[in-house]
Amino acid sequence: MLISIMHDHLSSTFAALADPTRRAILARLASGETSVAELAKPFKISPPAVTKHLKVLERAGLITRGRHAQWRPCKLEAVPLKEASDWIEQYRRHWEQRLDRLEEYLRHLQSKEPSHGRGNKGE
Amino acid sequence: MLISIMHDHLSSTFAALADPTRRAILARLASGETSVAELAKPFKISPPAVTKHLKVLERAGLITRGRHAQWRPCKLEAVPLKEASDWIEQYRRHWEQRLDRLEEYLRHLQSKEPSHGRGNKGE
Repeated sequence: MLISIMHDHLSSTFAALADPTRRAILARLASGETSVAELAKPFKISPPAVTKHLKVLERAGLITRGRHAQWRPCKLEAVPLKEASDWIEQYRRHWEQRLDRLEEYLRHLQSKEPSHGRGNKGE
Repeated sequence: MLISIMHDHLSSTFAALADPTRRAILARLASGETSVAELAKPFKISPPAVTKHLKVLERAGLITRGRHAQWRPCKLEAVPLKEASDWIEQYRRHWEQRLDRLEEYLRHLQSKEPSHGRGNKGE
């Protein structure tokens, strides 16, 4: 089995999400479309730096921008996130098993711990 | 509100997933731990290149490697994927709404389409 190493949608989506500013921009856009100036406000970075992040998000299909010359509002496009979610979901069984084992281990440790006077019997 | 632009776990996880070879490695490890040589087989890249990818996955906490000098088996650690899944999940409502609207639009188009003799009335 040969796996081709092509640039693909899923890689673009994950790469776009691999930055806290870009994730914060998506979070802001989840509450409605807005301008670049408005998006730049909570960040310690310039509007041109925000524009760079927007380009990464736009290439990944995670946002679209309006076509008005002066005000080009940004809008969240969540559909590529479905593909990312679907990919991650196939590992759910693995992390749930892992967390179950951790929980079991912690319960085992607690049952072995010397009691500190809360509901302890016979010591 | 200032948002700090620090390197964080979630960014490392998404960056590690932003590559088809690394995702294929995780998929292989989901069926059990294995050696680097074994992992390299399906890819058109050298074992050192695979080792590079493994380092990215290891730094993101997505795999661990055994400590035997000769055979250092790689093992999937799916827990960081839970955090990534939780982050994406908050947008589920958005993509579901979007897909519902698309479906509705397609249904609307189909109802307007000139019929091709399947159950059409009055034309």
